[in-house]
Amino acid sequence: MAKDEDVKLVGSWTSPFVMRPRIALNIKSVHYDFIQETFGSKSPLLLQSNPVHKKIPVLIHAGKPIAESSIIVEYIDEFWSSAPSILPSDPYDRALARFWASVVDQKFFTPMKASMGAEGEAKKGLMNQAVEAIGLLEEAFGTLSRGKAFFGGDHIGFVDIAFGSFLGWIRVAEISNGMKLIDAAKTPGLDGWAQRFSAHDAVKDVLPDTAKLLEFSKLLAAKLKEKH
Amino acid sequence: MAKDEDVKLVGSWTSPFVMRPRIALNIKSVHYDFIQETFGSKSPLLLQSNPVHKKIPVLIHAGKPIAESSIIVEYIDEFWSSAPSILPSDPYDRALARFWASVVDQKFFTPMKASMGAEGEAKKGLMNQAVEAIGLLEEAFGTLSRGKAFFGGDHIGFVDIAFGSFLGWIRVAEISNGMKLIDAAKTPGLDGWAQRFSAHDAVKDVLPDTAKLLEFSKLLAAKLKEKH
Repeated sequence: MAKDEDVKLVGSWTSPFVMRPRIALNIKSVHYDFIQETFGSKSPLLLQSNPVHKKIPVLIHAGKPIAESSIIVEYIDEFWSSAPSILPSDPYDRALARFWASVVDQKFFTPMKASMGAEGEAKKGLMNQAVEAIGLLEEAFGTLSRGKAFFGGDHIGFVDIAFGSFLGWIRVAEISNGMKLIDAAKTPGLDGWAQRFSAHDAVKDVLPDTAKLLEFSKLLAAKLKEKH
Repeated sequence: MAKDEDVKLVGSWTSPFVMRPRIALNIKSVHYDFIQETFGSKSPLLLQSNPVHKKIPVLIHAGKPIAESSIIVEYIDEFWSSAPSILPSDPYDRALARFWASVVDQKFFTPMKASMGAEGEAKKGLMNQAVEAIGLLEEAFGTLSRGKAFFGGDHIGFVDIAFGSFLGWIRVAEISNGMKLIDAAKTPGLDGWAQRFSAHDAVKDVLPDTAKLLEFSKLLAAKLKEKH
């Protein structure tokens, strides 16, 4: 079997976590079938391929399922191991990349998501936490990029993919809340980075259209509020 | 500099997350200074070496800090790369190991920890979630071990370390709640595994004494209840 045959990705165009493996597969020039879930329901394929979490994304490679976005991205980097590499080769640099990718999930995504279902002071507090995380990532960009275009240096790497996959949602949040989260004044490093990342060949056709995503976000926010 | 010089681990004997790098360093026969934090306070060294999370464990190798237990274990496996390996070499097997290690944290640790500060029905519900996670891990043991001693096969691997580091706390929870979580009847695979893991040379001097840990757990439970 050719190395890039029989690759399926179960996901949705709206999910930042699904964008991660899509960008990784694009970087490696691997063709894949994108099997989209319907919002609000879970397909038999999803339930069967990720019975523990029942969540997208799931990569199914030659019939073998892999779940959890960061784990899928590492798998893609290891299976299709020829350049460009997504993780650096030095063990300490790899640890730093994994660390900052986990900061994106723990410190940025968690409050950002919770803010969507919140109101008033609670919403403000959660948005402040997300802004604080962006401040940490601005600093990390200075260190990790070493003056180059991306967190990963000259190429898009693990942290770029982890954080960059949220750029569509960041734009939606900026519009919804009437405030900039990433801009030239507060976060000059990330501002330039976001433009370069969004325009990258592996990314530009995967990043969702902001107007369409804004519309979807209203559906999602209504659903999150129902749950509370 | 010799490869195993200048290794410090900031941690505490009570923390399952700190046990992970300790076991990994033992597996690789790397000597390290174990710098213990005092319960209830955070040292300047900890704050300075993990300013983002301010949490143990932190590995400081030749002056460079690395945080987050799973990331540290991967670093140890990659830097001291000679056998025995902690992660398997096949990309799919590596993905499975990372997946099940993350299941330990998300599905077992999260409700287990929350149960310590809870009472009555809430506590029961959380304990049931932890028991359910142990059931998933019993199944995973059957698949991953392929009939051998450990999740990692003949050797202790990534999932063994991730889950095995909780064995001390599991024993404490069994005593506190008057119920077995891992036993020969309900979880025969994990029952034998837990005995083999606890007796392993890289583990036996690191696993905390159950009576001492039980005493400490009472302090911790009181503190968690204060917070609620």
